[in-house]
Amino acid sequence: MDGKPGSVLWFMGLSGSGKTTTARFVAEQLRAQGRRVEMLDGDELRETICKGLGFSREERFENIKRMAYVAKLLSRNGIDVLVSAITPYREMREYLRGQVPGYVEIYVNCPLEECERRDVKGLYAKARRGELNHFTGISDPFEEPAHPDMTIFTASASLRQNGGAVLDWLDRKPRFMKAAP
Amino acid sequence: MDGKPGSVLWFMGLSGSGKTTTARFVAEQLRAQGRRVEMLDGDELRETICKGLGFSREERFENIKRMAYVAKLLSRNGIDVLVSAITPYREMREYLRGQVPGYVEIYVNCPLEECERRDVKGLYAKARRGELNHFTGISDPFEEPAHPDMTIFTASASLRQNGGAVLDWLDRKPRFMKAAP
Repeated sequence: MDGKPGSVLWFMGLSGSGKTTTARFVAEQLRAQGRRVEMLDGDELRETICKGLGFSREERFENIKRMAYVAKLLSRNGIDVLVSAITPYREMREYLRGQVPGYVEIYVNCPLEECERRDVKGLYAKARRGELNHFTGISDPFEEPAHPDMTIFTASASLRQNGGAVLDWLDRKPRFMKAAP
Repeated sequence: MDGKPGSVLWFMGLSGSGKTTTARFVAEQLRAQGRRVEMLDGDELRETICKGLGFSREERFENIKRMAYVAKLLSRNGIDVLVSAITPYREMREYLRGQVPGYVEIYVNCPLEECERRDVKGLYAKARRGELNHFTGISDPFEEPAHPDMTIFTASASLRQNGGAVLDWLDRKPRFMKAAP
């Protein structure tokens, strides 16, 4: 080991915007480079360390704090962490920037109409029928990231293009992404 | 990286038995050997990913499951994890043995009277006064580990002796503790 901390690539955006898909693509490329990589998926963590948390503003924030805690445990041990989580509020991102060393804010930008058209999990339809409260974009706000480190556009660019853009960005930021020994 | 998973050394025993102290000692030695090591302390995690969980049988189990989840994330990335948590019930240990690769069960054995005499955090006194419910050893059971991988006795042996015993044990179990590159 060389003791270098990993980065924490935090993919944020609406449900169905392509956060996890993009993160998974980037993770595979980084692994192929021999890096140690771990993914933290918001949906998965809600079944484990965030079980029981709801979708109020406070509980959403607690959810993000727990993900941040685990991301830090991993990254301080030299693992690159790719997080996918809606992360809808500005205060969350301020928290992350202040608390998580190696934090990289990646805004996965996709218009609501397109996310709703895809509706991979059928959640938008449920939310429109009023069966889901506090659903981001419909009945709960998504505050646009004001100063993301990078923005990718999943409605207008391909997965390969977006993944490539993230990898290019990381190559230009060697302080985050020093090659593992 | 060589892709070898880390071990998960799970120190269990009564409050005040010396779990965290022993784990910290062993962690320092392992770090001095150049290994990547992380500690997960039950008390600390109750302030973060286990926040809000109480001390009922079910909530204690959930607490252990969350610690196991994080331990796995770390160990599968080659990090040795040292957990200190009371882990009072047999079913928890069965769960851990089944779910956590590289799990090593270390029973930190110290008589209740001695733990209560030490009472570092003043919790036993509180429990005796009836101010704490579900307190392990007083008002909640500690089911003796039936088949621990090793037992250390903190009332009769020194920290250095016990830490040495753990390190010796690990040296004899190379499948758990292959040296890092």
